[in-house]
Amino acid sequence: MSTLATLVNHQIRLAARPVGLPTRDGWSFTEEPITEPQDGGVVVKTLSLSLDPAMRGWMNEGKSYIPPVGIGEVMRAGGVGKIIASKNKDFAVGDFVSGGLGVQEYLQVPADQIKRSGLVKIDLSIGTVNQWLNVLGMPGMTGYFGLMDVGQPKAGETVVVSGAAGAVGQTVGQMAKIKGCRVVGIAGGPAKCEWVVKELGFDACIDYKAGPSAVKDGLKEHCPKGVDVYFDNVGGEILDTVLTRINRSARIIICGAISQYNNTTAVQGPKNYLSLLVNRARMEGIVVFDYAPRYHLAVAEMAGYLKDGRMKSKEDVVVGLNTFPETLINLFNGSNFGKLVLQVAKE
Amino acid sequence: MSTLATLVNHQIRLAARPVGLPTRDGWSFTEEPITEPQDGGVVVKTLSLSLDPAMRGWMNEGKSYIPPVGIGEVMRAGGVGKIIASKNKDFAVGDFVSGGLGVQEYLQVPADQIKRSGLVKIDLSIGTVNQWLNVLGMPGMTGYFGLMDVGQPKAGETVVVSGAAGAVGQTVGQMAKIKGCRVVGIAGGPAKCEWVVKELGFDACIDYKAGPSAVKDGLKEHCPKGVDVYFDNVGGEILDTVLTRINRSARIIICGAISQYNNTTAVQGPKNYLSLLVNRARMEGIVVFDYAPRYHLAVAEMAGYLKDGRMKSKEDVVVGLNTFPETLINLFNGSNFGKLVLQVAKE
Repeated sequence: MSTLATLVNHQIRLAARPVGLPTRDGWSFTEEPITEPQDGGVVVKTLSLSLDPAMRGWMNEGKSYIPPVGIGEVMRAGGVGKIIASKNKDFAVGDFVSGGLGVQEYLQVPADQIKRSGLVKIDLSIGTVNQWLNVLGMPGMTGYFGLMDVGQPKAGETVVVSGAAGAVGQTVGQMAKIKGCRVVGIAGGPAKCEWVVKELGFDACIDYKAGPSAVKDGLKEHCPKGVDVYFDNVGGEILDTVLTRINRSARIIICGAISQYNNTTAVQGPKNYLSLLVNRARMEGIVVFDYAPRYHLAVAEMAGYLKDGRMKSKEDVVVGLNTFPETLINLFNGSNFGKLVLQVAKE
Repeated sequence: MSTLATLVNHQIRLAARPVGLPTRDGWSFTEEPITEPQDGGVVVKTLSLSLDPAMRGWMNEGKSYIPPVGIGEVMRAGGVGKIIASKNKDFAVGDFVSGGLGVQEYLQVPADQIKRSGLVKIDLSIGTVNQWLNVLGMPGMTGYFGLMDVGQPKAGETVVVSGAAGAVGQTVGQMAKIKGCRVVGIAGGPAKCEWVVKELGFDACIDYKAGPSAVKDGLKEHCPKGVDVYFDNVGGEILDTVLTRINRSARIIICGAISQYNNTTAVQGPKNYLSLLVNRARMEGIVVFDYAPRYHLAVAEMAGYLKDGRMKSKEDVVVGLNTFPETLINLFNGSNFGKLVLQVAKE
């Protein structure tokens, strides 16, 4: 496969730890040659990368659920790619895979790093490349297990989800509808709100940008029986407002806090947390990796819903590796609509 | 029983909703005659009243787990008393009872309010009057069910409890020791810390008044394997500091937030709450009344421990109904040592 020698791998590396929003000068842009894999190794061509709020956390120093990306390292990113060279019996040239590809055009994986890369073959007959980064990928798994395992929704209960039009939110809301719940989303702007109601079938969606009391008023109107499960992707004021409307024995899933990730001051703690006491309610964190042994079950279930039309997915696809720094920021200013995907190459 | 007619019931009523610490002029002091009970009614003579942090919450307007005390009403308080007149077949003159006696010398209960008063006969052979307000009473039930049902401690785990020398804290710590845990208390001042270690057998106790980093440093030193269960009675900075030391799948029981009850500003939310996410941990509220059907089981278990010496109890007894306004404040400035009891009359 002498063609490999002609390829150049463009990469984006973390150059400095950001303060507040990450800017373009916090990244470095490098090139590396691609070489033939050794025994047991593979070369993957990146097709699409998943851009996720969690990336902002990986850029910070300090202990978390996984180590931070080191300065000078290729930025961590999950993605879908295609095997273009293989000396590994588990992968054949032409196989589609998902895994930790990083923000680069190619991933060269030696034998001893196959496991760490998390490469797994994916079946494009049950979902598109971009759906494999959305409902069938990490965000979908996060929404599914966070809702089902931590939230434990019962038919007839009211489920509220913030970031409703985002990757995790759309999975949570649609799964909760399928399980027989009343579902109320919270999203930014009328277009997203209309989409989750009209296209995804949520019972209502609150536009948090509609005014200072929009969330409070919206919860009163759309959750007349209170909130039994709240899936929180945003933290901040919205979490505090939902805390005032929870029911007895409510479950709050702490999945993220995108409103706080670019803070240059301390995180805003939920000042209404004593509502947990009054309501004998629970607030519990979720990290998707814990559910890896059961991903295949969630994929099978939700692929079925995609097929029979009970679930839909929406991806916001931006083309070009080089746009990564600016595209990432779309997550934090709320300008993406649907799961944010960076398309690096076409199949 | 013509003697009843000679009795005067001194009462303390809520005169105004306090801002910050409740002061003496927020109470009114009234007198009422005692009359013979009608069919089904009883008259209880108050012996001792339980003074609890929760009382501060009952004085505020607004929705909570029980309605607030109304302006002009006798202040709500649990207590132990003696039946001095009865036309109810379930209670005989001379019976000792616990229940919602209120801050007054006598409780006159008509037939239709027997149930609401929560009066139950107690057995002074298994615990003293004051123990029935402590480990065998509401604080003990709170500590027992909060720890066992919500905290679910496993032998070998590390349990941290704040307000360690208080009524709830002493129950939590001793129960956790009995269940085979490493137990670290947090309390104010060397005397309380020494007592919970030397008398109650805690493994260590951190004096939060010892300096600005006392809790942080103490947790590092005394919880080398991290914190699996944190029973929080205080909220504020201590909760935030413990959140930085929790283990994966940790359980935080939100029982109270005494540091915040007299705030004239907003409650301080736990700014480190995202530690719940990183650690897949849980924060859950508890209200003791939910466990009423199982109180008798906890009482039987802990009365056994009191008898065989595995549990001890300490009450801080202040004498005289009229001292109530000032005695209550002892809870909030940390000057009480042990379960705070107001002794209204001797047996």
